[in-house]
Amino acid sequence: MTKKRIYLNAFDMNCAGHQSPGLWTHPDDKSSTYKDAEYWTHLAKVLEKGKFDAIFLADVLGTYDVYQGSRDAAVRQGAQVPVNDPAFVVPIMAQVTKHLGFGLTASTSYEHPYLFARRISTLDHLTKGRIGWNIVTSYLNSAARNLGLDQQINHDNRYDIADEYLDVVYKLWEASWEDDAVVVDKKKGIYADPEKVHDINHDGEFYKVPGAHLCEPSPQRTPVIFQAGASPKGTKFAAKHAELVFVGSTSMERTKNTVKAFREEAVKAGRKADEIKILTLITPIVGATQEEAEAKYLDYKKHASYEGSLALFGGWTGVDMDGVDPQEKIQYVKNDAIQSTLKSMSDFTVEEVAEFIGVGGMGPVVVGSPEQVADSLEEWIDVTGVDGFNIAYAVTPGTFEEFVEYVIPILQERGLVRKEYEDGTLRKNLFGSDYLPDHHHGRQFRKRLLPVASV
Amino acid sequence: MTKKRIYLNAFDMNCAGHQSPGLWTHPDDKSSTYKDAEYWTHLAKVLEKGKFDAIFLADVLGTYDVYQGSRDAAVRQGAQVPVNDPAFVVPIMAQVTKHLGFGLTASTSYEHPYLFARRISTLDHLTKGRIGWNIVTSYLNSAARNLGLDQQINHDNRYDIADEYLDVVYKLWEASWEDDAVVVDKKKGIYADPEKVHDINHDGEFYKVPGAHLCEPSPQRTPVIFQAGASPKGTKFAAKHAELVFVGSTSMERTKNTVKAFREEAVKAGRKADEIKILTLITPIVGATQEEAEAKYLDYKKHASYEGSLALFGGWTGVDMDGVDPQEKIQYVKNDAIQSTLKSMSDFTVEEVAEFIGVGGMGPVVVGSPEQVADSLEEWIDVTGVDGFNIAYAVTPGTFEEFVEYVIPILQERGLVRKEYEDGTLRKNLFGSDYLPDHHHGRQFRKRLLPVASV
Repeated sequence: MTKKRIYLNAFDMNCAGHQSPGLWTHPDDKSSTYKDAEYWTHLAKVLEKGKFDAIFLADVLGTYDVYQGSRDAAVRQGAQVPVNDPAFVVPIMAQVTKHLGFGLTASTSYEHPYLFARRISTLDHLTKGRIGWNIVTSYLNSAARNLGLDQQINHDNRYDIADEYLDVVYKLWEASWEDDAVVVDKKKGIYADPEKVHDINHDGEFYKVPGAHLCEPSPQRTPVIFQAGASPKGTKFAAKHAELVFVGSTSMERTKNTVKAFREEAVKAGRKADEIKILTLITPIVGATQEEAEAKYLDYKKHASYEGSLALFGGWTGVDMDGVDPQEKIQYVKNDAIQSTLKSMSDFTVEEVAEFIGVGGMGPVVVGSPEQVADSLEEWIDVTGVDGFNIAYAVTPGTFEEFVEYVIPILQERGLVRKEYEDGTLRKNLFGSDYLPDHHHGRQFRKRLLPVASV
Repeated sequence: MTKKRIYLNAFDMNCAGHQSPGLWTHPDDKSSTYKDAEYWTHLAKVLEKGKFDAIFLADVLGTYDVYQGSRDAAVRQGAQVPVNDPAFVVPIMAQVTKHLGFGLTASTSYEHPYLFARRISTLDHLTKGRIGWNIVTSYLNSAARNLGLDQQINHDNRYDIADEYLDVVYKLWEASWEDDAVVVDKKKGIYADPEKVHDINHDGEFYKVPGAHLCEPSPQRTPVIFQAGASPKGTKFAAKHAELVFVGSTSMERTKNTVKAFREEAVKAGRKADEIKILTLITPIVGATQEEAEAKYLDYKKHASYEGSLALFGGWTGVDMDGVDPQEKIQYVKNDAIQSTLKSMSDFTVEEVAEFIGVGGMGPVVVGSPEQVADSLEEWIDVTGVDGFNIAYAVTPGTFEEFVEYVIPILQERGLVRKEYEDGTLRKNLFGSDYLPDHHHGRQFRKRLLPVASV
């Protein structure tokens, strides 16, 4: 392709009403069938047909219980509750696709890295190298309380723990089993060469992991690293570790600034300015004509839930908007986890916040004919400097089906979306190589821990 | 069926060489392809064709590093290392089957019950109610050390923790969401009724879980409970919780005693003597004739690994047989976790132990023509009082394929294995009901925690 290609993820979650609270009431929406394998196999096939790079699966480990001081509104609206574990739909989707990648959200706060490393290696084996890991540190107090803590760990500490957590899993994935450790030599009776399987001897502030990884090397070893942290600590963390970064914002101008700042941070962290791909959240609403698309958007808005939106807002920000005049402008809310997005809403009234979140959650909506939507996406790329999009749904799988059916062919004709996948792993498809690049922090442990000859 | 039907599980593990160390060198063995989805989809289809009740997936979280004071022998022989997470092959097998159940091993020692409960509910949803949970408390020091402990928790304490762990997950599965909490009423805009979603308020010695379960009720709510503990504490635990129990022994006489003792323990725990189904480990080796089967067995024995067997034995018992004269009889080894099986080996020499474990691991091998193998299984049932078998492989999937092809039809003709599955969940297939029986300990939390009208 002559132009810079657009990276595309689909954004979903193992629950009903992910980023569009209340839209589960729409007759076209099937998100309440999230419990069934059929929902996921169908969606995966649609996305692979559209040459999406990956499906990005969000997750939370608690309920949204800030609004009105209880989880009732969230439960009533199915606002990200009930919510199932996203990891198990990955092998199901992998069975009906060959190239689609899977960006799995998992928190560094509640699971031991030794077990987590095995889970990811297992998935990377079973999908033949199509796993990405969206690293989160968990922001809900309701999760912390049920997982044995009085409240969530302080935000900056969470990132310190996450940083060490990453070192542990890099060591297990990259520097425990040498590339040729497993030989399966039936004649000599050697399954693996014990000389080539190494203890990682990790002895840190938060974790002690002396032994070797339980798994043999998977196709990518380390999964593709996704991250969405937008706080100062989160940005530094992403600049050091991430290969794909997600941003969300209400305006192009703000997104442009975020992208610029992030690329500078990447360079400070020793990375190339453009090696980390930045995807922004967007919800496309496509009609045969502009009028049809706008009518569709209005119809969706009618199904959006005011209390569902404010339940999500409460969980994201820790701020309860109950009792606040809907016409009052929200103040700038201090919350490290997602403050940049909130900053972009500070001029909104409460009602406008609810309306904005109601369709497409924390990202903008683009509404129009297939050509208009394609034009809008191009404009977002040109103006903001993002590398692609995290496509959310208004109704699922309809939003994805229509985007694949009507918009993807136009983007392909314009040379912005490829017509065929590369063969191989997710990282190969994204960056041309199965493994982390040599200069990546995670790859350094090979030089430190493995015998010279094997690196 | 007029006779008591035989319950059948297949016994496998997400690794090479599960119970037959060294047999991965046999030309017919494909266990080294455990990393690939194709291995599991093929196996699942074979087992469903044979009307197996479930596939039982073993697991360990460490390596066998007692023999010769290192993991080298285990790594060299692929003796349960490398080992992948068993949970992810379950949704893959579920996609190609409709009735086969999945008995998943998971430890109560290293994962928080709040997260674990969500994992199991998710799997139970995705498989439409075909999940069983084999509860283990983890016996390997090598696992404990890598998971943040200096050594494994004392055996009896592990069972105390497990007992509270079970209470937490029962409360989440049984008594948090009422049966009709989720309504998905698109007209009224009510996804779930918050009045019918309850906090569990668990405040115990080891866990504090105040909130509600993250998942809506799955088809079985609580998975079918599998257990294999044979120590006094383990037996009491199984008598209280288990629905299916696994035993393993070298002789019919010992198995008969174990079964009798266990049924007495079940009655003491308020269960019916025969409501817990007991399955014993066995490896069938089938040939067209007795001679052919015996020749096959001899061939397998040639591929068994002496050091692989002693590596497994070391991990299971904590005793290093390195340097001990192969002709010397082993002493009775005290180890709570699996002492009953070891007791049954106390008359064996070291060499005999290695030979016994080499094909079929901790259970006996039955060798013969299809009729002879069927006769042997009937004899085991009649003499010992077990309800069925946990079928291990010598070579995989060959052992399972041959058993399904040649032995199952005979057992079906004799009315001992059904010709069609019941429709519905694993528990329905096994016991005729989707849910735990009303008198089961786990079901009591409904009466204690839910409003009277809903129980």
